[in-house]
Amino acid sequence: MSRLWNRRVAALDPYVPGEQPKALDLLKLNTNELPYGPSPRALDAMRALCDDSLRLYPDPTSLTLREAIAACYATTIDRVFVGNGSDEVLAHAFRGLVRDDAPLLFADVTYGFYPVYCELFDQPYQNIPVRSDFTIDVRDYVAPCGGIAIANPNANTGIALPLEQIEWLARSQPDCTIIVDEAYVDFGASSAMSLTERHDNILVVQTVSKSRAFAGLRVGYAVGHPDLIDGLTRIKDSFNSYPLDRLAQAGAAAAIEDAAWLMETTARVVATRDALAEALKDRGFQVLPSCANFILVHHEDHSAVNLQRLLRERDIIVRRLSHPRIEDWLRITIGTDRDSDRLLTAIDDIRAN
Amino acid sequence: MSRLWNRRVAALDPYVPGEQPKALDLLKLNTNELPYGPSPRALDAMRALCDDSLRLYPDPTSLTLREAIAACYATTIDRVFVGNGSDEVLAHAFRGLVRDDAPLLFADVTYGFYPVYCELFDQPYQNIPVRSDFTIDVRDYVAPCGGIAIANPNANTGIALPLEQIEWLARSQPDCTIIVDEAYVDFGASSAMSLTERHDNILVVQTVSKSRAFAGLRVGYAVGHPDLIDGLTRIKDSFNSYPLDRLAQAGAAAAIEDAAWLMETTARVVATRDALAEALKDRGFQVLPSCANFILVHHEDHSAVNLQRLLRERDIIVRRLSHPRIEDWLRITIGTDRDSDRLLTAIDDIRAN
Repeated sequence: MSRLWNRRVAALDPYVPGEQPKALDLLKLNTNELPYGPSPRALDAMRALCDDSLRLYPDPTSLTLREAIAACYATTIDRVFVGNGSDEVLAHAFRGLVRDDAPLLFADVTYGFYPVYCELFDQPYQNIPVRSDFTIDVRDYVAPCGGIAIANPNANTGIALPLEQIEWLARSQPDCTIIVDEAYVDFGASSAMSLTERHDNILVVQTVSKSRAFAGLRVGYAVGHPDLIDGLTRIKDSFNSYPLDRLAQAGAAAAIEDAAWLMETTARVVATRDALAEALKDRGFQVLPSCANFILVHHEDHSAVNLQRLLRERDIIVRRLSHPRIEDWLRITIGTDRDSDRLLTAIDDIRAN
Repeated sequence: MSRLWNRRVAALDPYVPGEQPKALDLLKLNTNELPYGPSPRALDAMRALCDDSLRLYPDPTSLTLREAIAACYATTIDRVFVGNGSDEVLAHAFRGLVRDDAPLLFADVTYGFYPVYCELFDQPYQNIPVRSDFTIDVRDYVAPCGGIAIANPNANTGIALPLEQIEWLARSQPDCTIIVDEAYVDFGASSAMSLTERHDNILVVQTVSKSRAFAGLRVGYAVGHPDLIDGLTRIKDSFNSYPLDRLAQAGAAAAIEDAAWLMETTARVVATRDALAEALKDRGFQVLPSCANFILVHHEDHSAVNLQRLLRERDIIVRRLSHPRIEDWLRITIGTDRDSDRLLTAIDDIRAN
């Protein structure tokens, strides 16, 4: 606390991301990074740009990148916004596309950054409890509100919401922006991208951090009606004219164009995930049905806090999220098949002792 | 306008940056980029990182980069904050380190983004007119206020404020944060970095976009008392955990470590600037005394709007800023000596016709 902080900064309760350790021998299964490197085409594109052109500002409109995104989702560039990671895109959406005379609605068990944005922007919000099986009942969201945010698949559980339910919600709340946060959608859920053409109140937010293996690059994007995109652009141009550097724009564009790479890589992750889920169930774990590149697991005989500690002693990091309803669960990122073997060996070792 | 925008986004009047044309044959003297490429050491560092490690999140604390900055300015990492360009750093400072129960004070002729941040954050502000010779009188800033922002050198005029006056102001306004925006300081002004050790209310903001030739990279930083840095970090961690990608962190760190490159390159720019200023004075221009990598010029016989158009017809872009007090002035970025020759030839051609 300082006399030079204003009341806003003093009241904040910042987000705490998963640990990013420097030790290289750790098996890092805590922040949902892909175990495979990004598209080689994207790395080549970036390497070629490490030259004197970096003395020049990047394109403030990120036109080439937005064209790549528009082509990927068969839409037009006036429906595409890009930002410095989907966290920044979400922040701008919370800032500009949600009314602050009513609460923003989101699940109690969801991405932990949502309430943090709300505090930063003095935005009232209301948590809607998920059911006991951790699924969302969209009927709970038909209440007076300033907007709705849904992580689909859910960023904590991996559970996906069927598209028809999102469409039903968009129809039921025509004067609210429905922010659909699809950070994990490429691992088996259905994207609401196509719904944005017929519903002007759906904003779909995605990222290259997960399925495109570019967590180190910081590029996120949103697709929606041009009015929503204009609103986001007004916020962006009142905050930072050039949020994406030249290399990030070029790398993300090339990664998004490499559809074959995405299909092959996500298929590998899905196969590893489903095999790991089965192997854990065989060992008595409860595993929520995941459409993401992680699984949320629970074991009756092993508390999550102990299991996390014992895995860490064996150089494996997994994540325990802070919400009380899942504090006895562990979120495990899907790695390679070899990573799964190493994890299972460690678990077997723990259970034998 | 859209029914889905909230009152905040509807009220914005976003910043308009200088034009970033795609045509390569244009001589671009409008957004104060360096005419020389960045430190080769920095480019090498970035090229080496275009690999599979980009699948991993960057260090959210940007430790290595902050260590390089701390070493460069002989301070400690708890006094260093980094962000996605100095625009983002300034935005966070306006958001968190300025009280909103009193106006933020800044000059009428200054960086055009300051009032835009204020509108974004519902921060009241007051413009303090510069004198008729465009210098700042710090005594005008000793009024009840929520904070003070000074671009030094001034981002529109290039005029620098002596350090003693900044120190006097910091002493006179002990309970206000004094944000000293030093984007252009390396071209001949004195930095307030050393003052931050004895005045806990001075926050110095710098960037790698200008003197380090990395406008394309988007890295800015702030140095000040640890309490100020903590406040900025609380804002950052409530907005975007990972604002700097892996390449930007590595490239900026290497660029900041390359002190010899900085000294040599800025000396060249200063020599070109001073020669160009003399050559323009010989042609009847009024040239403000600049400590930046641009000059603000005016000619009695040639209106700025016409001169800008005629230069553009000759493939040279210069910038006319929107404030009424300088609307008949042109801001010209310093390029190479050859760029100066090309500019002078064009001006001679215009004056001959």
